[in-house]
Amino acid sequence: MKNISILGSTGSIGCNTLEVVDKLPQRFRVTGLAAGRNFELFCHQVKRFSPQIVSLERLDDAKRFEQICDTENIRVVFGPEGAEEVARFEESDIVVSSITGIDGLKPTLAAVQSGKKVALANKESMVVAGPLIQAEAAKSGAEIIPVDSEHSGIFQCLAKERTSEVKKVILTASGGPFFKTSAEEMRNKTVGEALSHPRWKMGDKVTIDSATLMNKGLELIEARWLFGLKPEQLAVLIHPQSIVHSLVEMRDGSVLAQLSQTDMKIPIQYALTYPERADSSLPSLDLGRIRSLEFYEVDETKFPLIALAQEALERGESYSVALNAANEVAVEAFLKEEIPFHVLSEVVTEAVDNHHDVYVETVDNIFEIDRVTRAHTRDLLEQR
Amino acid sequence: MKNISILGSTGSIGCNTLEVVDKLPQRFRVTGLAAGRNFELFCHQVKRFSPQIVSLERLDDAKRFEQICDTENIRVVFGPEGAEEVARFEESDIVVSSITGIDGLKPTLAAVQSGKKVALANKESMVVAGPLIQAEAAKSGAEIIPVDSEHSGIFQCLAKERTSEVKKVILTASGGPFFKTSAEEMRNKTVGEALSHPRWKMGDKVTIDSATLMNKGLELIEARWLFGLKPEQLAVLIHPQSIVHSLVEMRDGSVLAQLSQTDMKIPIQYALTYPERADSSLPSLDLGRIRSLEFYEVDETKFPLIALAQEALERGESYSVALNAANEVAVEAFLKEEIPFHVLSEVVTEAVDNHHDVYVETVDNIFEIDRVTRAHTRDLLEQR
Repeated sequence: MKNISILGSTGSIGCNTLEVVDKLPQRFRVTGLAAGRNFELFCHQVKRFSPQIVSLERLDDAKRFEQICDTENIRVVFGPEGAEEVARFEESDIVVSSITGIDGLKPTLAAVQSGKKVALANKESMVVAGPLIQAEAAKSGAEIIPVDSEHSGIFQCLAKERTSEVKKVILTASGGPFFKTSAEEMRNKTVGEALSHPRWKMGDKVTIDSATLMNKGLELIEARWLFGLKPEQLAVLIHPQSIVHSLVEMRDGSVLAQLSQTDMKIPIQYALTYPERADSSLPSLDLGRIRSLEFYEVDETKFPLIALAQEALERGESYSVALNAANEVAVEAFLKEEIPFHVLSEVVTEAVDNHHDVYVETVDNIFEIDRVTRAHTRDLLEQR
Repeated sequence: MKNISILGSTGSIGCNTLEVVDKLPQRFRVTGLAAGRNFELFCHQVKRFSPQIVSLERLDDAKRFEQICDTENIRVVFGPEGAEEVARFEESDIVVSSITGIDGLKPTLAAVQSGKKVALANKESMVVAGPLIQAEAAKSGAEIIPVDSEHSGIFQCLAKERTSEVKKVILTASGGPFFKTSAEEMRNKTVGEALSHPRWKMGDKVTIDSATLMNKGLELIEARWLFGLKPEQLAVLIHPQSIVHSLVEMRDGSVLAQLSQTDMKIPIQYALTYPERADSSLPSLDLGRIRSLEFYEVDETKFPLIALAQEALERGESYSVALNAANEVAVEAFLKEEIPFHVLSEVVTEAVDNHHDVYVETVDNIFEIDRVTRAHTRDLLEQR
């Protein structure tokens, strides 16, 4: 029996994780939950899974929770420090890190520093602080198992392989909702259209990132630090069916690939049960019925953010921090319908172009670059 | 530096193996060659690779070889015992077993019993004597690495996985030259048409087996014994592009696959270098250019031998021996243009239907079933 804490329990990954845990009661028990502002769902989760420690984003919600629920056996905390406390909670063996954006960094670091097995869904923490997280994991003995379907696929393909024998790692991208849309038509796509992802059901931020392909850009950077690869070893292919999640080309020309249904419960369950596996409740992948798997090169003119991410990958680490910060601000503005779709990519590109390389050594450095870039991106948005 | 003996050096796998060795002179040296009747090519190979022991099928050829070549430092042997002596040769670390048909069984067993690393291309030996070979390997410590592209793929996908967690192993089949031919048109296809394989360049026997899909049937049986799987864990999918060689579905719904160009040098090199890998001289697999990978269910009415092989898989082991024997005889008759294409499958089916289960314990049992079935199949052919 393994004890699990979930950071971001009311988000898409959090809910899927609880579904997985629910189906494997002999293997897993929920010991900690950290949520944002979805108070009702949070209360429902606590009732259902009886964790020992919980955290809410706001003090008010934490107080309200203590008033309406029986919290005799539950430690209730709140805010960023609350999430970190859940991440460090002694009783937990596994921490699912699924808070979206750079907000996930400190809780992820807390879990890593506590030597937990970390099921990592918060890609931004690896994007902005990959080397730092890996150094802490080496010190504490924490094991980081990726939850992103692409990275889970790479992790499974690499299995017994030596990284030195890897020629190329290819992440697939569905192409998002605008794969077949012309660049011209794409310019003024609405929030609703951008949120209609053809394959994956995910949170809003990730879904918009899929529409701009920035999601794949962030995943490239994540893969670099997760697997210790060089920028030139990483590539992206469009694969509209989203069945093949990633491909690993070895130096001898053999390519290993991981495929599955497009259901996040598969990589989540794998991260939890690794190195073992458990039965799936999903039907088998039926390739005879799916019939055709297609692959296309990425159109970088139409999706400039993927090229920008590749550029950031080649330049100093601080570019990744700036890229992520500018993107978070621009996505938020787009979701609030403050800017048209094309401005999102334009502003991120401008912000990163204006960035000057900074040496990154500490978490404080990262947050400083993040702060400066966010302010600058907001200025750029206001100028529009 | 590893020493290699090749059984069947002048065949398709043998020649490809020598090409691989030729490109990796720092890793491999050829110590033994056993060939059939292609005397000229054999002499050329000996001159080029300077082995310490060689074997030819016929005594006459062996004598001729001693007359025309300087054999001071070469031990020259002949016949089936000669091939076995090459397989056991003390100086060799790796034995590539690539004699076609049941003739490969005894040399393969000799290599296995000598505790060699065996790169197994002779699928028939695993088909007729799988349990026996595995028992001998367990005793001697021999390591068996498959060379068939499908089985090499499975071997790579299984890597660190536990067989107990495998739900299904799917071997792909190109569909051969008659995938798009109607059953009616297929009836009287000529030898020339059956030998025009759309994807793989292989020996005549294997190419005809690809046209009837018997090749895939034999591979199913081979996979059973190679990987210790149950009949119900094995399946076949048609995949005309022959890029994905096999897929392994795990119990959690994840599917691992191995892909590569259709060039036998890739799995051969892997078998030789395993557990390491070496650079390939081939260009990378370019999925963006290939564009589409297709998958279809097998039409068992059109290709009855695949269903027959699956039936043999479920019944006693002696059925596999009978299946292989009847098929070898019928393929030979077809290649000699003694029977039309449709009779090939019909006669094999009839011969296996007439077989009665026999307990298989020794190699002699196997050869007895083989002998009886061959005689019976010849009778059936004469009755036509």
